[in-house]
Amino acid sequence: MTTTDFRGVIPPVLTPLDESGAFDEAAFERLVDRLITAGVHGLFVLGSSGEVAFLSDDERTRVLEASVRIAAGRVPVLAGVNDMTPVRVIDQVRLAEQAGVDAIVATAPYYSRPSAGEIESHFRLIAASTALPVFAYDVPVRVHNKLDHTMLVRLGVEGVLAGVKDSSGDDVAFRRLVMANRAAGSPLAIFTGHEIVVDGALLAGADGVVPGLGNVDPARYVELYEAASAGDWVRVRVLQDEIADLFEIVFQANGVSGEAAGLGAFKTALAHLGVIGTNRMSQPVPPLEGEAVDRITAIVDRSQVAV
Amino acid sequence: MTTTDFRGVIPPVLTPLDESGAFDEAAFERLVDRLITAGVHGLFVLGSSGEVAFLSDDERTRVLEASVRIAAGRVPVLAGVNDMTPVRVIDQVRLAEQAGVDAIVATAPYYSRPSAGEIESHFRLIAASTALPVFAYDVPVRVHNKLDHTMLVRLGVEGVLAGVKDSSGDDVAFRRLVMANRAAGSPLAIFTGHEIVVDGALLAGADGVVPGLGNVDPARYVELYEAASAGDWVRVRVLQDEIADLFEIVFQANGVSGEAAGLGAFKTALAHLGVIGTNRMSQPVPPLEGEAVDRITAIVDRSQVAV
Amino acid sequence: MTTTDFRGVIPPVLTPLDESGAFDEAAFERLVDRLITAGVHGLFVLGSSGEVAFLSDDERTRVLEASVRIAAGRVPVLAGVNDMTPVRVIDQVRLAEQAGVDAIVATAPYYSRPSAGEIESHFRLIAASTALPVFAYDVPVRVHNKLDHTMLVRLGVEGVLAGVKDSSGDDVAFRRLVMANRAAGSPLAIFTGHEIVVDGALLAGADGVVPGLGNVDPARYVELYEAASAGDWVRVRVLQDEIADLFEIVFQANGVSGEAAGLGAFKTALAHLGVIGTNRMSQPVPPLEGEAVDRITAIVDRSQVAV
Amino acid sequence: MTTTDFRGVIPPVLTPLDESGAFDEAAFERLVDRLITAGVHGLFVLGSSGEVAFLSDDERTRVLEASVRIAAGRVPVLAGVNDMTPVRVIDQVRLAEQAGVDAIVATAPYYSRPSAGEIESHFRLIAASTALPVFAYDVPVRVHNKLDHTMLVRLGVEGVLAGVKDSSGDDVAFRRLVMANRAAGSPLAIFTGHEIVVDGALLAGADGVVPGLGNVDPARYVELYEAASAGDWVRVRVLQDEIADLFEIVFQANGVSGEAAGLGAFKTALAHLGVIGTNRMSQPVPPLEGEAVDRITAIVDRSQVAV
Repeated sequence: MTTTDFRGVIPPVLTPLDESGAFDEAAFERLVDRLITAGVHGLFVLGSSGEVAFLSDDERTRVLEASVRIAAGRVPVLAGVNDMTPVRVIDQVRLAEQAGVDAIVATAPYYSRPSAGEIESHFRLIAASTALPVFAYDVPVRVHNKLDHTMLVRLGVEGVLAGVKDSSGDDVAFRRLVMANRAAGSPLAIFTGHEIVVDGALLAGADGVVPGLGNVDPARYVELYEAASAGDWVRVRVLQDEIADLFEIVFQANGVSGEAAGLGAFKTALAHLGVIGTNRMSQPVPPLEGEAVDRITAIVDRSQVAV
Repeated sequence: MTTTDFRGVIPPVLTPLDESGAFDEAAFERLVDRLITAGVHGLFVLGSSGEVAFLSDDERTRVLEASVRIAAGRVPVLAGVNDMTPVRVIDQVRLAEQAGVDAIVATAPYYSRPSAGEIESHFRLIAASTALPVFAYDVPVRVHNKLDHTMLVRLGVEGVLAGVKDSSGDDVAFRRLVMANRAAGSPLAIFTGHEIVVDGALLAGADGVVPGLGNVDPARYVELYEAASAGDWVRVRVLQDEIADLFEIVFQANGVSGEAAGLGAFKTALAHLGVIGTNRMSQPVPPLEGEAVDRITAIVDRSQVAV
Repeated sequence: MTTTDFRGVIPPVLTPLDESGAFDEAAFERLVDRLITAGVHGLFVLGSSGEVAFLSDDERTRVLEASVRIAAGRVPVLAGVNDMTPVRVIDQVRLAEQAGVDAIVATAPYYSRPSAGEIESHFRLIAASTALPVFAYDVPVRVHNKLDHTMLVRLGVEGVLAGVKDSSGDDVAFRRLVMANRAAGSPLAIFTGHEIVVDGALLAGADGVVPGLGNVDPARYVELYEAASAGDWVRVRVLQDEIADLFEIVFQANGVSGEAAGLGAFKTALAHLGVIGTNRMSQPVPPLEGEAVDRITAIVDRSQVAV
Repeated sequence: MTTTDFRGVIPPVLTPLDESGAFDEAAFERLVDRLITAGVHGLFVLGSSGEVAFLSDDERTRVLEASVRIAAGRVPVLAGVNDMTPVRVIDQVRLAEQAGVDAIVATAPYYSRPSAGEIESHFRLIAASTALPVFAYDVPVRVHNKLDHTMLVRLGVEGVLAGVKDSSGDDVAFRRLVMANRAAGSPLAIFTGHEIVVDGALLAGADGVVPGLGNVDPARYVELYEAASAGDWVRVRVLQDEIADLFEIVFQANGVSGEAAGLGAFKTALAHLGVIGTNRMSQPVPPLEGEAVDRITAIVDRSQVAV
């Protein structure tokens, strides 16, 4: 496996729960098989969309092991190693290595209010602890620091980082990252995490997308990526508009947290499609119910998502 | 003049100053003529890039009158009516009307910490005070509120707003605005204010761009817009990359404010190109000097900006 | 008049409006006379509590002239000179000078995103434009910059600033400002703008308070200040608790802006006490009504505010 | 042990490291013994000041066990149970229970962007998992949510929470919390976490203080608390000013993170005083060195800290 294997559509896989709140491995297997059948190019497990923040280490281990077992080498498995500082992240790296994943994905430190220099050291310490490729996950709405693009490219050139998942919501910085990476010989594989601006990201030169909505509609994302690869931007635009329409499911619940509204919508859609059993969320996040569910299923139906 | 006249490349025109700090009308005339000759589709004066925040009402009046005189009907003139609350904005609208501009551009209230309802009332009060088309300028980094896309489209449908200049830096919200506007029959002309993501914005369906960098390189922006209109996305991408490389001029000054670095870079580039006389900024913003100037002029030179 | 005249209770005087929305000078006179009779040590007009952001220059001029006429030398009049950058603030300074006020109060620049150096230059430019004492108004929730205490003390030592009104909500920084000022020979008169932590501010060494709630209950604030001056901290605490209970009026309205809830509560209380005619607010801020008004008047009644 | 046992000065105990970066239990014992000898009323271990964010679960366990062993019942031991969501926090609660601590301290969820309802559920889930008293730690600069005072008092009345450590930096909200708690019969023990505004907090009615600086100068904090209890506010003020002067040690390092500057200053001071062996910090935080160290030790010396 080399860095150039990381490209295309790599959904951040949801973690289905059963009615008791426990990890539902059977549902997870149906979900992952559907993604691979639809043609996705990799799996990102234990990301924010995988509710990693809400899972104990034991639960994370079960998800990791199931992921590797089900993927069975068909596509690479990237795993979130989510914790607040290097020593704790490295404990998570051990879990991921033992499960046999193909790459790890780490955020900047959080809770601890790092300086720019400490953020860079953080990634260096993580990379030094493992032989696995390391992706930086840039998610300032959660960790409250934006990763600097010159630091990312520098760590790419040095072989510390293999890639970046950008969920920064900062399209100007994203463009600058893509350009600086290209000027440096493209050491980094660069992915956008934003579902509805994939067309622009690919036009700008991104290597792929990590879309939470890809759990619901993997086939359209794969088709969009292939159309972009073929230079058919008119087709890309049509598909992106269809996807953006479907993405409205995450805005249907009012007065709840972003996790409840967004991940809850993905789970509600997948339960409606019969892929998973329930839309149950990890405590303390309540599942969606009532009119929000009705609106979400109506959007899914009108979008004619391939089952 | 109808709303559909607002499209394409509409640079936010800089306000050149002479060595004493006064408005340099001769330099302004050279700047505007160069823009129109390059093919821009409109002028936006007294925007943030025009240092509107730093100009007295008398100075604003001089800029407005010069704009209308120099444009001479060749392209429409949009004018910023920048102040913190409705009654004060409406005093600015009177200045713009007296000068004879074609449209006005207003932000959300600032300093006053408005609710969503008060923001909507603000735009309604402004529109009720004038027969001119009103554009909403969405600039949360300055006014600390993001304009809600459903409110914008509602005001578009009702004829309160003619368009939106989006400098929100929120590409997901921008895509949702474009889609909601289209679903409503496209009452709004929608412009992005971000220089280096114009390709994605146009692919998504934006009507145009209001690029500060357009003061420096209007011809490339016009060519990019025309390539997009012709569906030549490969050419769009090439031009956008060239523009993004040139945009690096705004990141060359360290330890100064965003105004000093960004607008200062535009003025430094235009002085280097011989369009304006000096890179002087409004008090208390210092002009760029030393190595920052050297780096900026080197970037301009390598970019081969058309003079 | 010298800097040492600025101490004690200096309420930010509200701007009463009549039913048409115009400045109600008769109500303003009743309000100001009640404040002076209660023993306040100064008046701060055209502050945020005076709805300065919502008033045109003509309306501001009327308020300034009325203030000086009614105060009639009984207490000093400090006037807000509120605008976004130096040249515009200095235009406001001219209005204040012409009306004959005793001092001016200026915020950091806003909208324009200044650097620390530009903020310092801003205050220097303002002070250089006038012979009046200049107070810095530190209000980051509105202008989105916190004033650095070392800069403030430096400008105090140089005679640029006469004092500070601190509405930063940062009690650690406030303590550091008080200590640094004392170490420098106390060039600055330092006021807290926070209604319910006056006891701690005076214990720490503040020179006074600028409480919006002082419009409603000036007598208790004067009594609190006098108790603190006499070292009767047990009495100070009792009065501060009574005031804090009354301050709950600003939290009674839901789903409206801070201006509507806070200033609206002050106006509602004063209308209930018969001091002003209506609780009308400046456009686009709606007046409070219904149950919020009932809750506010009940709190005022139980607090036994001196009329 | 009852809730009323929690009052006074409860320092958030630092975690000394040896030159290799490992937990230095001998230094920790010297530190804790000095605190207890100085008269502190409790110990808070594994707080932010204890570098909890940087310690592995194994290291946390060693600190917990050492704390209980060294305290030996002389004062209560409160332990941070720091993680991002309920299920993970409860795993930390198990570690604290096994070590035999007297109370636990939990923040709001972080990384996961909870709603207000989810924050309340979070504390309910934690409290339901243990018989230990639960303190809420309000630290928005780290977790990016402010705890609502009505929620806190409600959970106090219901017996879910035993107290609050307030590091919110919001003195107005702190006063409202103290008053609402008193009106509800004082179910909560309320502590401020801010070193230099303890005088105002105690005057307002706080039950105590959790000062990081208390690691360096526990005796002065104990004397301040006792003076406040005796109503000697003039003495309180003098001591608070001395403490505030000493607190300047945290502002001596430039260009480093808040952890490096603040905790680094505490460790540097304690190494200078001979209490711990080195000022080493957890990776990736660099230790202070050079002129910053010189300035810190000079401040400690002039402050005449009791050894």
